[in-house]
Amino acid sequence: MSDILKGLRLVEASAFVAAPLGGMTLAQMGAEVIRIDALNGGLDARRWPVAGTGESLFWSGLNKGKKSVALDIASPEGRELAERIICAGGDDAGLLLTNFPPRGWLDYDRLKARRGDLIQLTIQGDRHGGSAVDYTVNPAMGLPFLTGPDAANSPVNHVLPAWDLITGQMAAVGLLAGERQRRRSGQGQHVKLALEDVALAVMGHLGFIAEAELGSRREPAGNHLFGAYGRDFVCADGARIMVVGLTGKQWSALVQATGIADRLPATEARLRLDLTQEGDRFKGRHAIDELIAPWAAGLTLSEAAVALDAAGACWGLYRSVDDMVRSHPNCATSNPMFARVAHPGLGEVLTPGIPLDFVGRDRLPPAPPPRLGQHTEEILLGVAGISSGEFAKLHDRGLVLTG
Amino acid sequence: MSDILKGLRLVEASAFVAAPLGGMTLAQMGAEVIRIDALNGGLDARRWPVAGTGESLFWSGLNKGKKSVALDIASPEGRELAERIICAGGDDAGLLLTNFPPRGWLDYDRLKARRGDLIQLTIQGDRHGGSAVDYTVNPAMGLPFLTGPDAANSPVNHVLPAWDLITGQMAAVGLLAGERQRRRSGQGQHVKLALEDVALAVMGHLGFIAEAELGSRREPAGNHLFGAYGRDFVCADGARIMVVGLTGKQWSALVQATGIADRLPATEARLRLDLTQEGDRFKGRHAIDELIAPWAAGLTLSEAAVALDAAGACWGLYRSVDDMVRSHPNCATSNPMFARVAHPGLGEVLTPGIPLDFVGRDRLPPAPPPRLGQHTEEILLGVAGISSGEFAKLHDRGLVLTG
Repeated sequence: MSDILKGLRLVEASAFVAAPLGGMTLAQMGAEVIRIDALNGGLDARRWPVAGTGESLFWSGLNKGKKSVALDIASPEGRELAERIICAGGDDAGLLLTNFPPRGWLDYDRLKARRGDLIQLTIQGDRHGGSAVDYTVNPAMGLPFLTGPDAANSPVNHVLPAWDLITGQMAAVGLLAGERQRRRSGQGQHVKLALEDVALAVMGHLGFIAEAELGSRREPAGNHLFGAYGRDFVCADGARIMVVGLTGKQWSALVQATGIADRLPATEARLRLDLTQEGDRFKGRHAIDELIAPWAAGLTLSEAAVALDAAGACWGLYRSVDDMVRSHPNCATSNPMFARVAHPGLGEVLTPGIPLDFVGRDRLPPAPPPRLGQHTEEILLGVAGISSGEFAKLHDRGLVLTG
Repeated sequence: MSDILKGLRLVEASAFVAAPLGGMTLAQMGAEVIRIDALNGGLDARRWPVAGTGESLFWSGLNKGKKSVALDIASPEGRELAERIICAGGDDAGLLLTNFPPRGWLDYDRLKARRGDLIQLTIQGDRHGGSAVDYTVNPAMGLPFLTGPDAANSPVNHVLPAWDLITGQMAAVGLLAGERQRRRSGQGQHVKLALEDVALAVMGHLGFIAEAELGSRREPAGNHLFGAYGRDFVCADGARIMVVGLTGKQWSALVQATGIADRLPATEARLRLDLTQEGDRFKGRHAIDELIAPWAAGLTLSEAAVALDAAGACWGLYRSVDDMVRSHPNCATSNPMFARVAHPGLGEVLTPGIPLDFVGRDRLPPAPPPRLGQHTEEILLGVAGISSGEFAKLHDRGLVLTG
């Protein structure tokens, strides 16, 4: 079984995408991840998309396989219970992930006084701890002005919260790296991770910052792949395909599939380009478009697919989300990453586990999300060391919720 | 110093974004990451953006802090040297990251026969090992049909290779999780990670799959944030801002900043909505737009900023990449994540280290990328156990390149 993080315990105080995804990544490899929420749920408890019942599909998707503890966090007693869970003993415990301000019951120094080797990873909007979300960070990166057909005049926001998703994975990286260090040195630490820094770093890594510093101004390229050849085309039956000639091999395959080889020399001569060079393919993209478009327009999708596959070309089909869910061959239980899992309040949903495939080990089947407070009693008794009698009193006083 | 992975050794046989980013993530935390390339460089050696000199800003951005070994991989002797580097001894070594087909010198079983506890992480296009890149995976996820103002009719490709970036971080997660397991059990493993599976899993995690399965069809929402309130507005001086009212607190702050509180009751009554509910804010987004647009249009950016900040609203400014590099307060060396670093062939460039801030430890300064083959001799002598005499012969025969 690929529960390779079995035994590791992480406590999560979180909402939305990045922190819950970071925790779920560890949970989907077998770690025990305890999400602590207020009695009425987290800030993301009702985040859209929602089912007809109001159940959040967003929450249920990002908290799979976790244990849920619901406490009256506003009360000193609730906060004390939370701190006990966070600081409970065990070599494999003492990990905290949050995207809330590291104050009060989430204050690292306070928690450290209780468990000296605590590893806390705090996700924040910007490096000063200011408020920022994916939707406010992304505009400042310049990408909306490079996206879409009329990009320069009307910026286009991304629909995928990409910065959140990258940050969530990086949070898991930081926790595992910190835990590795703790095993060697015995030392815990506070690790901060700013969403805005993640975005700025990526803009550096991909060369956008250097490009601007060197005085080159990138023009919007619509649906063209930047720097080589790639674009979308419409087939005779209205299907839309994306074709890519990034590497030399991909370009050769695309030329072969589309049968444009004999027309390339004239194009190269006219434009003074060498289309075996990826940069020249980008410079000559519009001329290449004109060669490929009639080929695509003359074929149905299945005819185009046969030609592209026969040549070994790299291409993809545009689908709606509905079409993906209905027809994508790998969006189905035949893909061992997926299983049909009953989610509380939703019924059975096609549910992904972790994409990491530990070959030769059985996949850890995707688990459903918890009901809010489902594990409050289990964790307070088993981790925080509360007696049954004490728990009953807390419950009677409305300080804890059992799901 | 935050070189918390110091001592860990990873060998990388890679190109483009995901695998190089995964390796660089470990390198930027202090691991020794050895990238092995062919004598003429990798498939990404000339990837755009490029400097006027032809130097790839993309390559230099994604390979910072690595060691470069250049070998004649086409020859049996070159492959033998590569295998020796991959399988060299040491508790903290024996990690391999690749996005090439795991065949030949990258065949896990073959390498395992040489080093039994090898951990190999292989990134592939789809789960069958088929060819796919970010640009062909993304269209099948349905997101291009939800992006941009006329989304449903003209799909919009993303400019940020988001799936690659998420996959790269997840590769680092898989390697660290595998190394943790090996330390406990002594066992290595082959971990496969398909780019397409990463994308499909995220579509599940964010609720897109469940939404479609439950029969709800999401309409494109242009630049509106889905499921709550958020949109871009143009100020009197042409500056464009993104404002967000996702949480209740953010919404209250936005209402206060824009002074629309007294007009909300009439809007709510007319539309039969309760705008304190995030979903109702999405349903009533166009009516909210009409209230906020004149406010934005009547103020300069600095006036709007004063009002938004005074209310504690969550907002962001749209910038071009040039503007980000020139004026973003955190895209500068005043942000300790950045330093000005001399890159081979490029001169000094504003260069990011890792966004993970290990509080109380000095940041590991961002290192430049290597020159191709810069560490060939060091690694062949120090890791592969070649003698100086043998190395001289390999060099004379053109089987190795020293950068």
